[in-house]
Amino acid sequence: MRRMTNPSLRVVAFGGLGDIGRNMAVLEYEDDMIIVDVGIMFPEEEMLGVDLVLPDFSYVRERAHKLRGIFLTHGHEDHIGGVPYLLREVKAPVYGAKLTIGLVEVKLREHRLANEAALNVAEPGDVIDAGAFQVEFFTVAHSIPDSCGLVIHTPMGPVVHTGDFKLDHTPVMDQHTDLIRLGQVGAEGCLLLMADSTYADTEGYTPSEELVGVSLSNIIHKAPGRVIIATFASQIARVQQIVDGAAAAGRKVFVTGRSMENNVAMARQIGYVQAPDGVFIGVDEMRKTPNSQVVVVTTGSQGEPTSALTRMANGDHRHIQIEKGDTVVISANPIPGNETAVSRNVDNLFKQGAHVLYNRLENVHVRGHASREELKIVQGLVQPEYFIPVQGEYRHLVAHAALAEAVGVPEGNAFVLTDGDILEIDEEHARVVDHAPSGYVYIDGLGIGDITQHILRDRAHLSRDGFVVVIVPVDRETSQVAGVIEVLSRGFVDIDDSEAVIEESKRVVLDALTTASHLAEIGGINTRVKDAMSKFLYDRTRRKPMVLPVTVEV
Amino acid sequence: MRRMTNPSLRVVAFGGLGDIGRNMAVLEYEDDMIIVDVGIMFPEEEMLGVDLVLPDFSYVRERAHKLRGIFLTHGHEDHIGGVPYLLREVKAPVYGAKLTIGLVEVKLREHRLANEAALNVAEPGDVIDAGAFQVEFFTVAHSIPDSCGLVIHTPMGPVVHTGDFKLDHTPVMDQHTDLIRLGQVGAEGCLLLMADSTYADTEGYTPSEELVGVSLSNIIHKAPGRVIIATFASQIARVQQIVDGAAAAGRKVFVTGRSMENNVAMARQIGYVQAPDGVFIGVDEMRKTPNSQVVVVTTGSQGEPTSALTRMANGDHRHIQIEKGDTVVISANPIPGNETAVSRNVDNLFKQGAHVLYNRLENVHVRGHASREELKIVQGLVQPEYFIPVQGEYRHLVAHAALAEAVGVPEGNAFVLTDGDILEIDEEHARVVDHAPSGYVYIDGLGIGDITQHILRDRAHLSRDGFVVVIVPVDRETSQVAGVIEVLSRGFVDIDDSEAVIEESKRVVLDALTTASHLAEIGGINTRVKDAMSKFLYDRTRRKPMVLPVTVEV
Repeated sequence: MRRMTNPSLRVVAFGGLGDIGRNMAVLEYEDDMIIVDVGIMFPEEEMLGVDLVLPDFSYVRERAHKLRGIFLTHGHEDHIGGVPYLLREVKAPVYGAKLTIGLVEVKLREHRLANEAALNVAEPGDVIDAGAFQVEFFTVAHSIPDSCGLVIHTPMGPVVHTGDFKLDHTPVMDQHTDLIRLGQVGAEGCLLLMADSTYADTEGYTPSEELVGVSLSNIIHKAPGRVIIATFASQIARVQQIVDGAAAAGRKVFVTGRSMENNVAMARQIGYVQAPDGVFIGVDEMRKTPNSQVVVVTTGSQGEPTSALTRMANGDHRHIQIEKGDTVVISANPIPGNETAVSRNVDNLFKQGAHVLYNRLENVHVRGHASREELKIVQGLVQPEYFIPVQGEYRHLVAHAALAEAVGVPEGNAFVLTDGDILEIDEEHARVVDHAPSGYVYIDGLGIGDITQHILRDRAHLSRDGFVVVIVPVDRETSQVAGVIEVLSRGFVDIDDSEAVIEESKRVVLDALTTASHLAEIGGINTRVKDAMSKFLYDRTRRKPMVLPVTVEV
Repeated sequence: MRRMTNPSLRVVAFGGLGDIGRNMAVLEYEDDMIIVDVGIMFPEEEMLGVDLVLPDFSYVRERAHKLRGIFLTHGHEDHIGGVPYLLREVKAPVYGAKLTIGLVEVKLREHRLANEAALNVAEPGDVIDAGAFQVEFFTVAHSIPDSCGLVIHTPMGPVVHTGDFKLDHTPVMDQHTDLIRLGQVGAEGCLLLMADSTYADTEGYTPSEELVGVSLSNIIHKAPGRVIIATFASQIARVQQIVDGAAAAGRKVFVTGRSMENNVAMARQIGYVQAPDGVFIGVDEMRKTPNSQVVVVTTGSQGEPTSALTRMANGDHRHIQIEKGDTVVISANPIPGNETAVSRNVDNLFKQGAHVLYNRLENVHVRGHASREELKIVQGLVQPEYFIPVQGEYRHLVAHAALAEAVGVPEGNAFVLTDGDILEIDEEHARVVDHAPSGYVYIDGLGIGDITQHILRDRAHLSRDGFVVVIVPVDRETSQVAGVIEVLSRGFVDIDDSEAVIEESKRVVLDALTTASHLAEIGGINTRVKDAMSKFLYDRTRRKPMVLPVTVEV
């Protein structure tokens, strides 16, 4: 049993599942608690019909009275998407850099929670008091402006959380990773480092955003006709590079796709995207401008079905019809799981006559995360006593922990935590002491957490072979079949082509019921109908639809 | 109108959709026709419940009397998987190299067609008469032994079909691409080249299999414990390299996974996998052998749910329990669409304590297809008058056609054909003259071609939100509701948690029916029930289950 008199820092890790995971970290010291990031995950293939996935908030909910603040490193969905859902359950001030808070504000308005949240803009260098913690923001280079890391001063010593980062020495908008601050914390003696693991299995260095700027600018200059560039709506710095390239080439910029339009408008408002007068044009002006003077910035780099680029690829965008001579640039890599959708868009754009450039052909995208050599530099600067790899799938966390121990973290002091693990650090050592409630919390429509494994299994079954409902009218006195058996199916066979099978199945069910020696109760009838029907359909089709018997008493 | 007196060669391309596409080419000259490859495609994500996808055989079926032979380049599923289905419809001799024919034989036995097919083994250099065509086999390097290209001599001139290939100068089992033969055909004057486009958008050269052999051998030598290597069951040469490495390290080899066991047994029988006595061991001997002396060769490199490696990753393989000290090697790249499943296996293996090596970390796999520089060499040797890129998604075909024209094919003579396009080549020129019936033919259970878009749409709908069946008893005389309304749902909400919603929905339906001024006919009742129920459920849950009203007359 651990001594309760020995003060300790608890770190609880949630999510950490890939590029678009449910990133959330809880730091707790005696009666104070803070949260770093509250992300959402987009559903994986087998999470059928699920809209979004949250981390489990139970641990936070049970300790809501200790919560002193929610600190956000940057404005990507896997770091801020869960904020509205968390704020429905707990109250606490929210801190983040300007753009990050701007994006959270938009979300809260959509959720009609804008008036109930205390949002605070923090500048790099600001230190925020949060009970036993003092939280300091510092800049990092990443694929969205205003990305920050945190130095969290605790009674046990400083904790560094990098957020998502890379070491870009020629970043757009001058957003460097603050190596000096990292070195200072290292000199002071860092208790714990938590660092981005996304590319912990990738050798070398991640190239600079500058490379993409040069490529895009060249493409815009050389293209014979219209240039259509798809990227993430949050890639504001990339948009700035496109605008610069367009302006330099004497082209106009048209923005399409709801989230891109909203983000660019917001970024222009706060001065994060700047352009000479008249460079941005609306749809009417675009129609009057020759193709060779137009650049289109669009959503859809991930092949999202209703995005603007997918509509163009399918020939049903409201304003833009792909023509021979168009150059389409996919300025993004597919997030794992989206490869097929992205490839399909590329193929469809080629079929419509566009020339399509993607990362295999040109340097039109660089990653937003540090590779192994950069991770080593951070370790060398911070030299932490303990290390927790964050932001990555399990294999990335393992690779990052091994890297850390190889370059200086004492053996056994790098902890690969999974969803819900509680690490306790006291004066002498650190160890995983417990596990918080954790796992996927599914959002489907208005329901949060009501989608069970049982429902997902049923949906999977239905998706493979559909269903068959068998309606059996039964005399309420005699329990004998008293009328015509009806069979209803969807997603199983083509009803018109399979009339014979359906008719035969009714006879099979009737036989099964009439040859039964006793049908004392409805339950018995239902089991018998289900078994006979399932067996018959499998024998005839080798498919296994969900069979639901319904007995109607008449 | 084209002159019928002018003899012409017709080429009809089917499939050509990626690495695992429905590759099939038809060549037709007056009254003679041959087929090159008959592949299947594995279903894409939205082809719910579909087992396999075939090319459309209508064109071949209608001209079955002209068919002189089916020629198979190599034994991968995307080139031979459709043979049993085609042979149910047409009769023709089948030709291929030894291993290819061996694999087809296994398939035909499974389909109980072994006695009805004329299978013929062709050696490299063999020339087969097939009506107006003489078909010659030549060796190519690829990821399965006995891969061949074809020189098809036609009255219009020779056609070269590369099959799937790369230029491996240090191949395993001495299987070189026959550059000399390609050059001879080029010297003679080649009418048409059809060549593998899989990596037509990848710069440079594809590395040699030798590289993988060296890596695997090093891993096997250095690993402290058991080494478990997953690869494709058809990668016989890779298996030989593993066996060689194991034998050199004094280790035994255990083979697991049904298709791997079958293929290795077959390959040993025909002498394609060779090992010193006692290297291959069964399960009993494996149990007695120390881990440090064991290599396991397994299926599951693509994360297939029921494969041996996935079972190990999930801790439910019958014979192999992953232990700390195990080294697992994924000696394959994920086929597009399988990335998530593969990553999940890697993560689960790490969680169980294994050290996992995959291609990002070590050279444990090389591609089986030629990159751009190799494709240029083939163009330089063959110098065809016309060119058709095959085996690739649309963007690869476009890239390959552009490459061909850049290095010598006359402009306008490279044809990007899609599924069903008919190219006609006469003495003067070539052009697409028509389009054969084409598209996806789905196999689901015993049904071939009976899965319609309608069924797939229903399955997609069911997979998202499930369904609700509303059973309304109606008096057959008065058309009034005459009894209790029943509601049945699956995949929609958790029934126990949502009892209130379901009960309320019954009242809503009843209200909708009783307030109706006239319910003259059943159709009217059904529409009313469906509308009221759908609206109510959407308002309450923001989900849109499939709603099916059933009226039962009592």
